[in-house]
Amino acid sequence: MIIHLNEAITLPEENFIREKVKEVGYALNEVRTRRQRYLVCVGNKPFDIRSIGNLPGVRDVHYVKDANKLVSKEWRVQDTVVDLGDNIKIGKGNFSIMAGPCSIENEEQIIKTVEFLKSQNVRIMRGGVFKPRSSPYAFRGLGIDGLKIFHQHCSANGIKIVTEVMQMDQIEPMLEYVDVFQVGARNAQNFNLLDALGEAGKPVLLKRGLSGTIEELLASAEYIFSGGNENIILCERGIRTYEKAYRNTLDLNAVPFLKSRTHLPVVVDPSHGIGIRAHVEAMALAAVMAGADGVIMEIHEIPEKAFSDGQQTLNFTETSLVIERLRKTYELRESFL
Amino acid sequence: MIIHLNEAITLPEENFIREKVKEVGYALNEVRTRRQRYLVCVGNKPFDIRSIGNLPGVRDVHYVKDANKLVSKEWRVQDTVVDLGDNIKIGKGNFSIMAGPCSIENEEQIIKTVEFLKSQNVRIMRGGVFKPRSSPYAFRGLGIDGLKIFHQHCSANGIKIVTEVMQMDQIEPMLEYVDVFQVGARNAQNFNLLDALGEAGKPVLLKRGLSGTIEELLASAEYIFSGGNENIILCERGIRTYEKAYRNTLDLNAVPFLKSRTHLPVVVDPSHGIGIRAHVEAMALAAVMAGADGVIMEIHEIPEKAFSDGQQTLNFTETSLVIERLRKTYELRESFL
Amino acid sequence: MIIHLNEAITLPEENFIREKVKEVGYALNEVRTRRQRYLVCVGNKPFDIRSIGNLPGVRDVHYVKDANKLVSKEWRVQDTVVDLGDNIKIGKGNFSIMAGPCSIENEEQIIKTVEFLKSQNVRIMRGGVFKPRSSPYAFRGLGIDGLKIFHQHCSANGIKIVTEVMQMDQIEPMLEYVDVFQVGARNAQNFNLLDALGEAGKPVLLKRGLSGTIEELLASAEYIFSGGNENIILCERGIRTYEKAYRNTLDLNAVPFLKSRTHLPVVVDPSHGIGIRAHVEAMALAAVMAGADGVIMEIHEIPEKAFSDGQQTLNFTETSLVIERLRKTYELRESFL
Amino acid sequence: MIIHLNEAITLPEENFIREKVKEVGYALNEVRTRRQRYLVCVGNKPFDIRSIGNLPGVRDVHYVKDANKLVSKEWRVQDTVVDLGDNIKIGKGNFSIMAGPCSIENEEQIIKTVEFLKSQNVRIMRGGVFKPRSSPYAFRGLGIDGLKIFHQHCSANGIKIVTEVMQMDQIEPMLEYVDVFQVGARNAQNFNLLDALGEAGKPVLLKRGLSGTIEELLASAEYIFSGGNENIILCERGIRTYEKAYRNTLDLNAVPFLKSRTHLPVVVDPSHGIGIRAHVEAMALAAVMAGADGVIMEIHEIPEKAFSDGQQTLNFTETSLVIERLRKTYELRESFL
Repeated sequence: MIIHLNEAITLPEENFIREKVKEVGYALNEVRTRRQRYLVCVGNKPFDIRSIGNLPGVRDVHYVKDANKLVSKEWRVQDTVVDLGDNIKIGKGNFSIMAGPCSIENEEQIIKTVEFLKSQNVRIMRGGVFKPRSSPYAFRGLGIDGLKIFHQHCSANGIKIVTEVMQMDQIEPMLEYVDVFQVGARNAQNFNLLDALGEAGKPVLLKRGLSGTIEELLASAEYIFSGGNENIILCERGIRTYEKAYRNTLDLNAVPFLKSRTHLPVVVDPSHGIGIRAHVEAMALAAVMAGADGVIMEIHEIPEKAFSDGQQTLNFTETSLVIERLRKTYELRESFL
Repeated sequence: MIIHLNEAITLPEENFIREKVKEVGYALNEVRTRRQRYLVCVGNKPFDIRSIGNLPGVRDVHYVKDANKLVSKEWRVQDTVVDLGDNIKIGKGNFSIMAGPCSIENEEQIIKTVEFLKSQNVRIMRGGVFKPRSSPYAFRGLGIDGLKIFHQHCSANGIKIVTEVMQMDQIEPMLEYVDVFQVGARNAQNFNLLDALGEAGKPVLLKRGLSGTIEELLASAEYIFSGGNENIILCERGIRTYEKAYRNTLDLNAVPFLKSRTHLPVVVDPSHGIGIRAHVEAMALAAVMAGADGVIMEIHEIPEKAFSDGQQTLNFTETSLVIERLRKTYELRESFL
Repeated sequence: MIIHLNEAITLPEENFIREKVKEVGYALNEVRTRRQRYLVCVGNKPFDIRSIGNLPGVRDVHYVKDANKLVSKEWRVQDTVVDLGDNIKIGKGNFSIMAGPCSIENEEQIIKTVEFLKSQNVRIMRGGVFKPRSSPYAFRGLGIDGLKIFHQHCSANGIKIVTEVMQMDQIEPMLEYVDVFQVGARNAQNFNLLDALGEAGKPVLLKRGLSGTIEELLASAEYIFSGGNENIILCERGIRTYEKAYRNTLDLNAVPFLKSRTHLPVVVDPSHGIGIRAHVEAMALAAVMAGADGVIMEIHEIPEKAFSDGQQTLNFTETSLVIERLRKTYELRESFL
Repeated sequence: MIIHLNEAITLPEENFIREKVKEVGYALNEVRTRRQRYLVCVGNKPFDIRSIGNLPGVRDVHYVKDANKLVSKEWRVQDTVVDLGDNIKIGKGNFSIMAGPCSIENEEQIIKTVEFLKSQNVRIMRGGVFKPRSSPYAFRGLGIDGLKIFHQHCSANGIKIVTEVMQMDQIEPMLEYVDVFQVGARNAQNFNLLDALGEAGKPVLLKRGLSGTIEELLASAEYIFSGGNENIILCERGIRTYEKAYRNTLDLNAVPFLKSRTHLPVVVDPSHGIGIRAHVEAMALAAVMAGADGVIMEIHEIPEKAFSDGQQTLNFTETSLVIERLRKTYELRESFL
């Protein structure tokens, strides 16, 4: 059960509601986001929720069967739109293209990529400054200094930044320079990080775990939401299966399934998803038809020279073509509504 | 190495070629399809294939690195088009829609489905008469008698039949009434059946195994081809993963990947693939954008009353809409070429 | 519900029982094995089974919740012992060691292996004469002629033969020369073959499918049992997972789990299971402690020269040591009862 | 290449070595553990390592092909023994039994468990105070205060503590009260945490990820080692597969495989591994025969009342029996050496 509180609720009104919930034996979790206040109540005993819906201070109340309540479409029917400012929005009626290199490598690379994205009217740039690497001996990214330069060029050109945060204590130094915090597949169940991102307030792009279930992805989003942050974007990026012909198995089934279960926007990463440059376009276009709200792609001026992930990275010429086709495909999909 | 022989090759010419191949230590497999004759030579020792290419009786010769040689695009660059007659073709430049019930249940059902398909200009009907069922106590299909009635109505209406064959000794009695033999996921590595279908000559729609790899799918197709049958259609139908939110995990990555590896047409079964009626359309449209040459879908006048698979079956109204959108999506994809 | 009939039941008695079952709306399957006669009744409506249990001609009646009824331990509490004759038994109180080459290669190999097995007091020999091979160009086995020689040497030395059957029409020619028919992983859901083996009567060693679930393995066994054959041995042989460090992932969890669900004996194939010669012993010994009723192992006088599977095959010296340790480990396990 | 340095190396000697390594184009990582100092050099160019082995200040030098060098058995042939003090050791020649509740619930529970473990001569207790939970609304553990009480009773009774750390900033407050830091499956690739545990110095029990590969597990261990900590225990705890009959699929193949690849001790968690109480014993005993250096098990005085994981938790009576059998099985295994 989710009780949505009025902003003008008084303390006695609130206490009365809390008493009522305890009486029916439900555990009560208070959730305060930048938008609203909620009481998330977990329990099994059936009772007439109207007895709470009519109390003063209550905006509305919903019974939610799903384990992950705040992210559930059972509760919030309207799709969430994540607003990055400057009229850049993700979700419902927008198709978001996010592109950029796997790793931020140097200033020149940033400048060229920003320029290219502007020419394509793409307004969100991805790029890693903290890189999770399997081997301790591999390049781990330029860190916070790289991020500052990244931010300087993007903000000067009206481009928003999505970049990975790996660790709670990176949040504060990054906060000023980031528009969307990305949580990588390996951290999809790093619950302390999710909690902290709930409090941080900035939008979060949450990737599905390496072998994360749909239910786990929603549970991780619930962590962020219940931590205080409604601005969550889910990202399908390929799962681990027995099939080794591709790097991962991009699971496009997740797209319509998630859209039927949650009000949050769902984007797709075809680059990691299939991990083969020649097939990124096909999977990106397929993602549109599966119902994605956007794609996040790895691009590089010279993929062969990329510090990482070159084998799945598109060059600028390829990217232009894919972008054009993505937009035409999205247009066709919209015409079906 | 594949040596394509001239039709007019003489016996002495052929023997001379065979000698030459043995000299370099390659194992030699003779393949005779309804279209052509080939010598498939398996070995490792490098040598100048021109020394064979110039021999009398040889049409051409190719070195093929892939383990599965006859189905490889390394060898045959031109996409295979499977011709079912009456101007019904599968592959390259055709988008094939195949639809029908999971199980053929009775004559009335056949009549209504045929009528519906005609109204939609769909010219291939699927429907099972031999049903592989996990439980020995479940409905196993109407068998050969059902097939005869199925065939009677389809042939009278210019509709081709694709139906599953489970067992070598069913081939002969079915042969007259079937246009495309379907090999189900559970039989994808039933090598005796594949051999026999190589000899039977009728086109084969080969489904990927429950957890079949791409390489295994190609190997199974190689069985059919080397058995003498070039008319093979590959079908992605969902794989088995840890994710239980859907029946199977439709693996659309397989589509562009297969298209880059083989000259055979690739179709997609979104019904088994995701196994949830509400999401069949999204996956079908995504399959088009992934590059599929067609889809095979489960439809039923009243899915709730279907003998099997009702939960993933579309009704006629839903099907009409999906067909229209499939065609528009295919048209858009074609415009990208 | 399973109704076990008296052997001396009269036709009127039987008809009366059938009427009763139909009255409560259960579907009725008659099962006649070489041992007994059963009526397997499938339905949902609860009713007092004693009303049937008391009828003349009924030996006993059990309510069975499991989908796979005849193989369920819910019904038959006593473990099944499969008797191969000559005092060679598989199951309950016996630990069966089956060993031999992947493929039967020639008479000399048979003679040497038989001799070795006799010296170790191993009385069941495995060896393939029909080989399922991914590639159509690979060695497919010596066939029925090889089997005859195989049988000649084994029967002369009191050794039983377990060998794979791939195809219904091989059953009859093989029948005389085989003691246990093996169904390979790729045929684990070849339902026509399972049906036919139900009728053939000889014991069956049924391997779990490449990515077969426990439930599917039991369902395949139910096919054989309901086809008329109670002498079934289940075999865990490794499943397909994302992990590629080993050939397959031997799933020893299946052993205690299956033993708690079915009365059939369960053996383990550590050779295919892990697929690495150096680790076959560890997995074989672990299988004993997991509760297996036996192991089936690939051995060869000179594994490096084996036609197939050499990388997972033990030589005779290694095998002797493993056998000794298997027996000691089994003895320890028995002491825990 | 790993260069093991003399403790008494001089700065000029060291600089000379570094120069030499750079000359051959290898990247150089300095590793300083509490035991020793190493230079881990990563590169491809072959050269004669004796040219470095003979330099002053070098204790020895090894060429290591494996990607994960410091944990590789290619380099260090001797098995690592992790010494917890008070003559409690993990690895080579010791069989370690670790047991305790999933969650530390209250002081009484600690007292009773400690008492029971003492009676069994078990000297390592597990118990979570920080609990990673999928749902943000579930019990998350007693935290640092619970740990202090846990520690008080254990240290008073000569029992060592293994407990999970979820987050870098928990390390310092926990440090004094923990004998072995456990890294849970969900944090197996939380690289910042691994780095920090490298520096913290206390032994680490590293669980394999939910769907972690062997290679990834070794890479995560390499993080800890190269961060400065040689005292690492690897733990197989079940992987995620398509099979849903059990909670996870305990992968005992990992045991002999890991033992052949690394010098680190390997323990097994049968409780999470199969997740079914009735089968924990079978899997624990199987783990011994597979070659494990120990087991870590969930036990509780009254499993039915456990805050979490009751369904896979043994009671004290069951545990006594399992311990006795584990020791007898280990004794048998040792007799095989």
